[in-house]
Amino acid sequence: MDSCVLPTRHDGISLVQTTDFFYPLVDDPYMQGKIACANVLSDLYAMGVTQCDNMLMLLGVSNQMTLKEREVVTPLVIKGFNDLALEAGTTVNGGQTVLNPWFITGGVASSVVSNKEFIMPENAVVGDVLVLTKPLGTQIAVNAHQWLEDESSKIWDRIKDVVTTEEVERAYQTGMQCMARLNRNAACLMHKYDAHAATDVTGFGILGHASNLANNQKAEVSLVLHTLPILANMVKIYKACGVNFKLLDGFSAETSGGLLICLPHGKAQSYCDELQALDGQPAWIVGEVVHGNREAKMDTDLKIIEV
Amino acid sequence: MDSCVLPTRHDGISLVQTTDFFYPLVDDPYMQGKIACANVLSDLYAMGVTQCDNMLMLLGVSNQMTLKEREVVTPLVIKGFNDLALEAGTTVNGGQTVLNPWFITGGVASSVVSNKEFIMPENAVVGDVLVLTKPLGTQIAVNAHQWLEDESSKIWDRIKDVVTTEEVERAYQTGMQCMARLNRNAACLMHKYDAHAATDVTGFGILGHASNLANNQKAEVSLVLHTLPILANMVKIYKACGVNFKLLDGFSAETSGGLLICLPHGKAQSYCDELQALDGQPAWIVGEVVHGNREAKMDTDLKIIEV
Repeated sequence: MDSCVLPTRHDGISLVQTTDFFYPLVDDPYMQGKIACANVLSDLYAMGVTQCDNMLMLLGVSNQMTLKEREVVTPLVIKGFNDLALEAGTTVNGGQTVLNPWFITGGVASSVVSNKEFIMPENAVVGDVLVLTKPLGTQIAVNAHQWLEDESSKIWDRIKDVVTTEEVERAYQTGMQCMARLNRNAACLMHKYDAHAATDVTGFGILGHASNLANNQKAEVSLVLHTLPILANMVKIYKACGVNFKLLDGFSAETSGGLLICLPHGKAQSYCDELQALDGQPAWIVGEVVHGNREAKMDTDLKIIEV
Repeated sequence: MDSCVLPTRHDGISLVQTTDFFYPLVDDPYMQGKIACANVLSDLYAMGVTQCDNMLMLLGVSNQMTLKEREVVTPLVIKGFNDLALEAGTTVNGGQTVLNPWFITGGVASSVVSNKEFIMPENAVVGDVLVLTKPLGTQIAVNAHQWLEDESSKIWDRIKDVVTTEEVERAYQTGMQCMARLNRNAACLMHKYDAHAATDVTGFGILGHASNLANNQKAEVSLVLHTLPILANMVKIYKACGVNFKLLDGFSAETSGGLLICLPHGKAQSYCDELQALDGQPAWIVGEVVHGNREAKMDTDLKIIEV
């Protein structure tokens, strides 16, 4: 699933670790550093691991940038990454930096845990409900913002009659804040509210990750999504832009997306309420766990919430 | 130094980890995978850590290769990496693969250790001798091989009168085997022969890494190098090629180089003998630890051994 869990030579102690690196998707280097850090840590959080013992930073500085650009941008990326690591209660010790045609940001997150510190994503039961902790649509928000900035964009011509520049800017800013937000409180509350399984929503989209999660269950269950919380105005852009992001099919890629968590029916709303109190941002009940062959699907009666 | 050592929340248990990624330097994808793996693990071995609990693999597959090339090359790189991890008694669980203009190979090595499992590189004393476990000159061997293959190379024109194609090919093959060899036996024997400190020789060259090691010592010592074991025929290429690799200054970059180890005077030769028996390859006494201000330098009377 999201992280590997390895027994060590020390009794009752496992190593949980994960790595991810990718290319920048926002203009702001400091925020990009934060997003890279949040995205790496998210794989630990999806396992209910709340304490990261060490991070490594992976950087590729673009040789297509001028020396001046590199000198301005690189320290900001590093600062964003380090600042969010501190916010997560960990530090960055080690890493590697290379020159590369494309800018690369990423890292490694590791935690040495006792067996009660992580939640294997395999114990969903019929009757559980699915909670999502961040809205969808970040890929479209980021792309729409690029189309807006690029005066030669033909796609902007297609969507400019259905959306305002302010709406695009707002979705971009909201999406950027979402991507840079840690799933750490969401992971802490998984323990308090007896989560049975979780994953984080990233490149495969919510249904892709739900499918992986369903496939990993011990019980004969399937996951049904009945609600998609999506950044405001992204649905109308999606419908007008002519690019098939598969947003309403559940396959639009996210970066540093929310946790998708199987929680006992009676505890899910309390989980959402307490997470909103801690993070200042909503979480949503988006589906349920039913009898099935370890698959995930969309409900035929899908509800869209504009966030 | 080479790896970070982090105390964990578990009494007496630390996390030692390191990452490295870089671009291919040999033609053979399988050997390149092995070299990437050996190079990552080497940073653990330099700390005397002999058991790696997990590796992650970092790959960037070149988008400048054809689909067919990618389908042939990538599995070979992965197989080389995995095979050497197995040889090191560990496995690869996790990683990240992206498309990138340049091919990238690398990884992460982590070990969860008790305090007696690692040797902090800080306890050299006056009278220690320095042992090196692989020959120098890999950068020149790799470059000479490229000049040989490139029919338009002007540098080949400069060296073709001092070296034969067979000599270049032999140095390339020997260097490739050296780079793909684990420093694991070298690390195991560090414990048996009471090593006081070690580092591995990579991008900064032997004197660069010796300087870092000297600077990290608790005692007021300096390191003096009196011998450089160098792949056969690399010195004459170096002198003729017109590219200043700084080989004889001790700064020619190595990839997956040997360990440079401070050993008690009376134990160094036994260390070299036993390592040769285990690895089938020689190690050399290349210097000594003297009173000083934590610096490293070359002896004025430098001896070159052609390997």
